[in-house]
Amino acid sequence: MDYEQILKDIKPTEKEQQDIDAMSDRIVNYLTETCKKEGIDAKISVVGSVAKHTALKGKSDIDVFMAFSLDVDLDTLKEKGLYLAHKCSDAFDGNASQHFASHPYLTTDIDGYEVDLVPCYEIEDGSQLKSAVDRTILHTRYVKANLTDEGCDEVLLLKKFMDMTGTYGSEFKVGGFAGYLCELLIIKYGSFEETLNAACMWQYGHVIDLEGYATSSQFDDPLIVIDPTDKNRNVAAALRLNKCCEFIQSARNYLASDNKKDYFYPLDKSLDKEDILDELRKRGSDFIAIKFDIPEMPLDTLHPQLKMTASSLAEKVNNEEFNVFSSSYSSNEIDSAVILLEMASSKLNDIKINKGPKIFLNKACNNFTNKYGPENCHVMDDFLVHAQKREFSDAVKFIESIFTDKNIRKIKVGKNLRNTIINSYKFISVDDLASDEFYLQFLDDFLNPGQYIVR
Amino acid sequence: MDYEQILKDIKPTEKEQQDIDAMSDRIVNYLTETCKKEGIDAKISVVGSVAKHTALKGKSDIDVFMAFSLDVDLDTLKEKGLYLAHKCSDAFDGNASQHFASHPYLTTDIDGYEVDLVPCYEIEDGSQLKSAVDRTILHTRYVKANLTDEGCDEVLLLKKFMDMTGTYGSEFKVGGFAGYLCELLIIKYGSFEETLNAACMWQYGHVIDLEGYATSSQFDDPLIVIDPTDKNRNVAAALRLNKCCEFIQSARNYLASDNKKDYFYPLDKSLDKEDILDELRKRGSDFIAIKFDIPEMPLDTLHPQLKMTASSLAEKVNNEEFNVFSSSYSSNEIDSAVILLEMASSKLNDIKINKGPKIFLNKACNNFTNKYGPENCHVMDDFLVHAQKREFSDAVKFIESIFTDKNIRKIKVGKNLRNTIINSYKFISVDDLASDEFYLQFLDDFLNPGQYIVR
Repeated sequence: MDYEQILKDIKPTEKEQQDIDAMSDRIVNYLTETCKKEGIDAKISVVGSVAKHTALKGKSDIDVFMAFSLDVDLDTLKEKGLYLAHKCSDAFDGNASQHFASHPYLTTDIDGYEVDLVPCYEIEDGSQLKSAVDRTILHTRYVKANLTDEGCDEVLLLKKFMDMTGTYGSEFKVGGFAGYLCELLIIKYGSFEETLNAACMWQYGHVIDLEGYATSSQFDDPLIVIDPTDKNRNVAAALRLNKCCEFIQSARNYLASDNKKDYFYPLDKSLDKEDILDELRKRGSDFIAIKFDIPEMPLDTLHPQLKMTASSLAEKVNNEEFNVFSSSYSSNEIDSAVILLEMASSKLNDIKINKGPKIFLNKACNNFTNKYGPENCHVMDDFLVHAQKREFSDAVKFIESIFTDKNIRKIKVGKNLRNTIINSYKFISVDDLASDEFYLQFLDDFLNPGQYIVR
Repeated sequence: MDYEQILKDIKPTEKEQQDIDAMSDRIVNYLTETCKKEGIDAKISVVGSVAKHTALKGKSDIDVFMAFSLDVDLDTLKEKGLYLAHKCSDAFDGNASQHFASHPYLTTDIDGYEVDLVPCYEIEDGSQLKSAVDRTILHTRYVKANLTDEGCDEVLLLKKFMDMTGTYGSEFKVGGFAGYLCELLIIKYGSFEETLNAACMWQYGHVIDLEGYATSSQFDDPLIVIDPTDKNRNVAAALRLNKCCEFIQSARNYLASDNKKDYFYPLDKSLDKEDILDELRKRGSDFIAIKFDIPEMPLDTLHPQLKMTASSLAEKVNNEEFNVFSSSYSSNEIDSAVILLEMASSKLNDIKINKGPKIFLNKACNNFTNKYGPENCHVMDDFLVHAQKREFSDAVKFIESIFTDKNIRKIKVGKNLRNTIINSYKFISVDDLASDEFYLQFLDDFLNPGQYIVR
C-alpha cells in the first residue's frame, strides 16, 4: 500500500504548515507581549492538532490557550482571558464570536484561519483540573514529547481512515474516536497498520495503559485508554460501543481489501431518488416518518435528545405489540429533524387481553369482576382477564396519541424537543422525504447501514 | 337457595337407586357364587360412585371389582379375572367389549346398565399398590365410612356444579376435578356451599390433609389433597392450574349471583352461525384454521397430543415474529381435529436481520463476512449482522413449510398425529368451519372463553 500517495492528499503541504506555524507564532507573540505590557500573568501556547502536527489538510484550526496560575480566581480568569482574546482578535482584524465550553472562549476568523482563544488554568497533572479544557495543554505536551515525525503521518492516516469510515470524532453526533485518542493509539502501536492489526483482536474492555498506571479496573467501557496525563481518566470514555465495533470491523475489511486506497476517500456514489425509493419499497415495510421543527440548541444537545426520543418512541410502539423492524433519526441541523420507523408490521387486530389479578387474590378478583362484569371475564392460566377492544390497531394512530400534551410524558422525549414535536410534527411519506437532498442521504444511509465501513 | 329442587333433577330417584342396587347385588352374588363353585379366591365388590351413592342421575355405571390376593401372579389374575367377567356377562346376556387400563377389564351392557368388570389386587394401603385400579376399593371404603347421607347430596351438588361450569372430570380433555376429589372436598368442608366459600380463599398449593399425614411438602401442585388411603399421593395431581382457577372463579361468581339455579343446568344458548361469524369478523383478526384427520387412538392420548401440537405451533409462529393473539384446538373425536390460530398480525415485511457473531470474535467475524460478503454486513451494537430477505412474510406460508416431512420436527407434534397432519391437513376458512355444528360450538367457546363459569 502506497501511503505516500495518500499523505499527499491529506497532509498539509510544507508551505501550508509554514504559514500556519507563522500565524500561530504571531498570535502567541502578540498575546505574550500584551501580557507582559499589561502585567497579566498568563502563559500563552498553541495546543491541539496544529501544535502537534497531526491536523488533516483543511482542518487546521489554531487553538491558542492562555494559562493562568491556579491561584487566580475564576472570575478574574474569565475577565482577563476574554479581554486578551478580544484584544488579540481586534489587533488581527479578526471576526469574533464568543462561545461557552466549560468556561467562555472566543472563536475568531483571522486571515481565513479559525482561531480559538481559550483561557484556562495552568496545571501539572490531571488531579489539579479545574475545567475540562485545562488538560489540553498536558495532552499537547505529552503527544509532542512522544510522537515522532513519522508517527504524525501515521496519525493522519488513522484519522482520515476513521473519518471516511464514519468513526472519527468524539462529538455526540458521531460518538467516535477523538483526535487525542488516535494519537495515543499510534504512540502505542507505532503505525496505522499496526493499530488496525491490533484492533482486530481487541476484546470488550481492551486496556491501553501507556504509563503503566494500572488503574483500568475502575472503568467498564468497550475500550479503556488510560490518559497518560490523568490516571483516573479513560480517554475512550465517550466512544460508543457501536462505533468501537465499527472501527474494529472496518479494520478487518480494510486489511482484507484490494481497494485499500478507497478507504481514505469519500464514498464514490451518486444518489438517485427513484433507486432509493425502489429499494425502500422492496422491503415490504410500512415506513412511518415523522418530521418536526428543531429549536435553537447546541448540536451536542440536539443529537442525544433526538436519539433518546427516537429510541424511546420505538420502544413504546413495540410495547404496544406493533413490530418495529428498525428506527433511526436525522437532523439537517438547520430547521428540521426526522424520526423514521420501519415497521415489520404496523397493523394489529382489534382485540386485546386486559390482564387482571392472579386468581388466588380474592379481593382483587372481586374488584376486577365488579369493574368489568363477571360475564366479561375469563381465566387464563392463573390470571383473571378481560378481553377488550384494542385502543390502537394502527401504529400511526398510536403515535398521534403519544405526540400530545397529555401523553408525551409516556416516552422519554428530549426536553428541548417536547414542545416543538407536539406543535410541529407531521407524518411525511418517504417519497416526500426523499425529495429533500439532505434526507435522501439519510435514507440511503438507512438502507445501507454498513456502507461506510467497507469499500 | 332451594337445593331440594336441584336435587330432584340431579339425584337418582329412590326407584332408580333400588333398581341399580338390585342389579349390583345380582352381579356380585353371581360372581361370588361362581368363585366359590370353581375354587377361585377373589373378593367381589361394587365400587365407585354407585357404591358410594354419589352418582349423578343418568351416570349410574356399575363398577364391579374382583380382588385377588397379592400372592396371585399377574398372568393368573388377568386370566381368571377375564374368565369370570366374560362368564358373568354371558350369564346376564350382556354385550361385552374388552378394554385396557393398567390391566385388562371388561365393559358390558346388561339391561341398559354399563357394567365394568375389573380384576385387581386386594390391598390394605397404598404402599401395596400393584396397579392404579387397586386403590379404587380403598377409596370406596374410605368414602362410605366418612360421608353421611346428607354429604352424598352435597357431593351431587358439587359434581353437577362443576360439570356445568366445565371443571368436572379428571380425563385429559378436561383436566378437572375427579369424583373422588369432590367427595373428599365435601368430607373436608361439610357442604357444597362451604366448599365454594373455602375455594374462594385458596392459595396456590392449598393443602387438604384429612388424615394429618403431613406429607404435602413433596408436591408442587395448584391444589394438594393428600389421599387418605395413600399418604404419598396427591388426589388433585391431575387437576390443571387453569381448571383449578376456573373452579375458584366460578365459586366466586356463583356466591355473588342472583341466578344460582342456572349454575346447575347447561347454558341456555342457541348458536347462530351468522352471529358467530359476525363476532369473529369484528375482532379484525386473521384466523388460521387447520383441519386434519385423526387416527384411531385413545382420547386420553389424542387430547394431550393435540394440545402439545397446537401450543408448539403457536410458539413457533410467534418466534417467527408473527403475532399469535390466541390459539386453540378441538376434535370431534370421530374423524377430525382443528387447530385455530387467531392472529394479531399474520403479515410481516420482507426483510430480516441475520444476527452474526459478536464483533470481538475475530475468526467468527471473518467467517461471517466470507460467507455473506463484507459489503453486505453491518454492525448493530456489538454484533456483526446481515440484512436478508425474510423467508416467510405470511404466517400461512410459514405453517405450510412446517407441515412437511422435512420440517415438522421443528415443532413438538404428537407422534400419533405427525403423519396424519402432513398427509391430510388443509387450511379451512372460519366460515366453512362454522358450517359444521360441532366446530360451530368450538368457535362459540373460543369467542366466549368465560361463558361456562358464570350465569
